[in-house]
Amino acid sequence: MTIPQPYLLFLGDVADQLAAKTAAGIVDWRDECCVGQIRLRGCKADLGIAELTIAEAVAKGARTLVVGVANAGGLLPDHWTGVIVDAIEAGLDVASGLHTRLGSIPAIAEAAERCGRRLFDVRQTDQRFDTGKGVKRSGRRLLTVGTDCSVGKKYTALALERELRTRGVKADFRATGQTGVFISGLGVAIDAVVADFISGAAEWLSPATEPDHWDVIEGQGSLFHPSFAGVTLGLLHGAQPDVFVVCHEPTRTRMRGVDRPLPSIAEVIDLTIRCGQLTNPAIQPLGIAVNTQAYDEAEARAYLLSVSQAHGLPATDPIRFGVSCLADALQTQFPT
Amino acid sequence: MTIPQPYLLFLGDVADQLAAKTAAGIVDWRDECCVGQIRLRGCKADLGIAELTIAEAVAKGARTLVVGVANAGGLLPDHWTGVIVDAIEAGLDVASGLHTRLGSIPAIAEAAERCGRRLFDVRQTDQRFDTGKGVKRSGRRLLTVGTDCSVGKKYTALALERELRTRGVKADFRATGQTGVFISGLGVAIDAVVADFISGAAEWLSPATEPDHWDVIEGQGSLFHPSFAGVTLGLLHGAQPDVFVVCHEPTRTRMRGVDRPLPSIAEVIDLTIRCGQLTNPAIQPLGIAVNTQAYDEAEARAYLLSVSQAHGLPATDPIRFGVSCLADALQTQFPT
Repeated sequence: MTIPQPYLLFLGDVADQLAAKTAAGIVDWRDECCVGQIRLRGCKADLGIAELTIAEAVAKGARTLVVGVANAGGLLPDHWTGVIVDAIEAGLDVASGLHTRLGSIPAIAEAAERCGRRLFDVRQTDQRFDTGKGVKRSGRRLLTVGTDCSVGKKYTALALERELRTRGVKADFRATGQTGVFISGLGVAIDAVVADFISGAAEWLSPATEPDHWDVIEGQGSLFHPSFAGVTLGLLHGAQPDVFVVCHEPTRTRMRGVDRPLPSIAEVIDLTIRCGQLTNPAIQPLGIAVNTQAYDEAEARAYLLSVSQAHGLPATDPIRFGVSCLADALQTQFPT
Repeated sequence: MTIPQPYLLFLGDVADQLAAKTAAGIVDWRDECCVGQIRLRGCKADLGIAELTIAEAVAKGARTLVVGVANAGGLLPDHWTGVIVDAIEAGLDVASGLHTRLGSIPAIAEAAERCGRRLFDVRQTDQRFDTGKGVKRSGRRLLTVGTDCSVGKKYTALALERELRTRGVKADFRATGQTGVFISGLGVAIDAVVADFISGAAEWLSPATEPDHWDVIEGQGSLFHPSFAGVTLGLLHGAQPDVFVVCHEPTRTRMRGVDRPLPSIAEVIDLTIRCGQLTNPAIQPLGIAVNTQAYDEAEARAYLLSVSQAHGLPATDPIRFGVSCLADALQTQFPT
């Protein structure tokens, strides 16, 4: 499955910027593949790229309309259908990371059939997996985990892939969510897998490799999130990481989508080690990645220093300060 | 969805008795609904009920052939198709708890269409669930958990439902696996739910009820099983149990389907409390249910006494000695 680029990114009328994290992630890592954005009245997200009509996007060479938002439950609102049908009629394919299959909406299915356009449901998988086996595989693995959803797990993994490759370390980003699949063109939306096969899908995603090769695996959810912790645990067991990076957003007071406080970084480290030891007894924390955008630079540096000292681990904001301190720690602990 | 009874139970040629736990569970709890069993050459499981041909079963009133086995991965072997087609042609509906959809096998789909028979895939669900919310619901909940798969979680829950009802306590068994759904006619095969909705499905399964009503929820897998722990954790979070019963088989040396030792009962209690506190801070262990069939009665009593003393909890073998000690503890701790 290859999704034709470049993309026109559709944001619907989502209520906040976080809901557009799929589209924002694509822009962050593949901005050369995004001709612009299209939004409905009342949309509270903005990618800061060109605002285009469908006709303008087609004129700029767009080949696929990407439904680049993440709703709770992953449903496609009825009033978004018009833009999708218009895009199909203008000659675009459509790709979506929602749970709702594009083809399950009659108007969309009919338009795609009539116009000969393709519908990509990145979050769906018809692929068969085995159940997880828990057998140690060759190669090295890093998993990003978090105190919550939407705290930078994908970004941190992508930044580490880039940094390690720059240093000549063999590394591959392994996508476990729709945005990562859009970005890398490979992977599995692990929250869309049948529950029995979560760890098996993670084992498939990160097969045995050369001993000095790193799979940098995108984490999902949080062991402390009451909606998604099962996904997080199955991914942890299947990924069998040698090291993990804890991602955190220090100003968030409630977990995403539920009325509940965030766990501490220490709790996440502790439970990740405890559960991760099941499939990799040597699992250890590598460092901490913090989204410090709510702080000025001095506050951010002070916060990172305090977190680093409290846990005895390197801490950085990957967006603001890069991930070299995490790559340094990795190369020190795992010399080739 | 109502599956017509009585059943003819089909065991294929499975390699051991444990693989036929679905069929055995139906016999244990609804023997009046089972006319007999049918097996292929080499089958190592035996339910101890009448061995019938399809014609004999039809003559005894059978209405549904139940594919009553649980394979790793839940696949339907090709060489089982013949018996299923024969049953359809003899006028039986077919019900299966495997992942493979009966209708996905062309010969079976064709026969069902031609003969006007129905195919029930108990392990599949086309039902939509919300994501779990983690909000406390009224009513009381008991969840069975385990040191492994296939250690008596369903049996213990069914026995507790029966015992509590006998005592006049309002109680409902809540099925989370195919056997339980066959037995109770309700429930959800939670390992067949899309991963994002595990805890949401558990919340749906056990909705808010009267304050003194007990949902006795069938557990799945083990927090320590590398194939299925994600399912176990999502179920724990969604069930938000007030109490849990740990199920164990003391002579098993390796976990089911993987090369790995079992966790201790203490480890299971500890991790269940730690993870379960996320959605029910008051979670506590109620007791321990042990499958002692490998022991003689004196050994069984000695083992149960030692386990009870080691953990400060009542311990019983539900099959051998009943669950009155667990019901006693529940009524003592939760007087109405």
